[in-house]
Amino acid sequence: MDDAVNERRGPDTDAAKLSRATVRRLSQYLRSLGSSDRAGGTVSSLDLARSVGVSAAQVRRDLAALGHLGQRGIGYDAAALATAIRRTLGIDRTWRAVLVGVGNLARALLRYRGFHDQGFFIVGLFDADPAKIGQTIDGLTVESSASIPIRVAELQAELGILTVPSEHAQPVAESLIAGGVKGILNFAPVLLRTPDRVRVVAVDLAIQLEQLAFRVQHADPGPDL
Amino acid sequence: MDDAVNERRGPDTDAAKLSRATVRRLSQYLRSLGSSDRAGGTVSSLDLARSVGVSAAQVRRDLAALGHLGQRGIGYDAAALATAIRRTLGIDRTWRAVLVGVGNLARALLRYRGFHDQGFFIVGLFDADPAKIGQTIDGLTVESSASIPIRVAELQAELGILTVPSEHAQPVAESLIAGGVKGILNFAPVLLRTPDRVRVVAVDLAIQLEQLAFRVQHADPGPDL
Repeated sequence: MDDAVNERRGPDTDAAKLSRATVRRLSQYLRSLGSSDRAGGTVSSLDLARSVGVSAAQVRRDLAALGHLGQRGIGYDAAALATAIRRTLGIDRTWRAVLVGVGNLARALLRYRGFHDQGFFIVGLFDADPAKIGQTIDGLTVESSASIPIRVAELQAELGILTVPSEHAQPVAESLIAGGVKGILNFAPVLLRTPDRVRVVAVDLAIQLEQLAFRVQHADPGPDL
Repeated sequence: MDDAVNERRGPDTDAAKLSRATVRRLSQYLRSLGSSDRAGGTVSSLDLARSVGVSAAQVRRDLAALGHLGQRGIGYDAAALATAIRRTLGIDRTWRAVLVGVGNLARALLRYRGFHDQGFFIVGLFDADPAKIGQTIDGLTVESSASIPIRVAELQAELGILTVPSEHAQPVAESLIAGGVKGILNFAPVLLRTPDRVRVVAVDLAIQLEQLAFRVQHADPGPDL
């Protein structure tokens, strides 16, 4: 629990207490607000519920945790709601990230428009392969993985994105942490051991397919929340 | 609820009632079982708890839902547990999938070893770009997106993986459904509208980064469950 953060955000937005599921839905509400042309307009809990695939009551509960934003019979001010969600998620600022492991997945991520739109900037590229070091991709030059601890600190990157083969994931994670990253998005299908102060979100693409297989097999309805 | 499925799996493995969070953890326990050399051996709830980052009590609750697999003081038979988890997840069989949208992400997914290991086989590739149609990638020839409904049925694919730009995602999803797919793994950052009988798992890579930013910002510990 970080008191300074909670104080700044006020008692109505004690974000650290939100469940993982709620935080995922906040991201989805934000997508829904962004994809519709609602500048200056209002949006109802039912609109949001329909676009995300949950109940309107769930939407109201989730958004109540952000403060008193909605008005009965009128709905939410779309712009104010988007601002409140971005503040709660911690994306009312920009984040600097480095990417390690320059393969097809990394190239896809570099061109993924959604990152820039949400304030995530990839400021460094690293690889262990001498054939890749020195290449320029989308304006960034690939640097040697050996330089990660020094360069991450120089680049003031807080996040690291791991797209290396499984066997390299743990040592690369450790060099990122040595450089000062506070969070790692891990695409390698391996569980990372990291200090408590470092956050890890794992994206195991086979797990996503397994979740889909489970739902098809068991006729489990509803979206991915 | 599918009675035939539940009957086959018995009253102790009423899989359709498992929560999303439990199903995600089952995938993670399976990873942990697979990554260690425990052939013929046993594994304790504490071993699994440590490798996944939850409490041993949580592990025991999750696994109790699969049947009476553990023995007090001895632990779980690792092979039997892996089999039970695979059966519950619906991956004690193979799944045929097609992939639509042949860019960097698709190439990364095609070479992603984890899919084969878990029984997922990509049997068809489609793209709308005439320059890509006819190319061969990893033994598969890229076919025209216009042929999706007919070819998906011929290939007997049950799952579709969408790696197309956002603006093409909805019509491509509809053509996959016309061809008979029952589940879609959607990498396009857009919410798909699909009939109730079709399952969708969305992989929005910016949402994953947002979840990471939230945890770094709010010092939220623990792994991604």
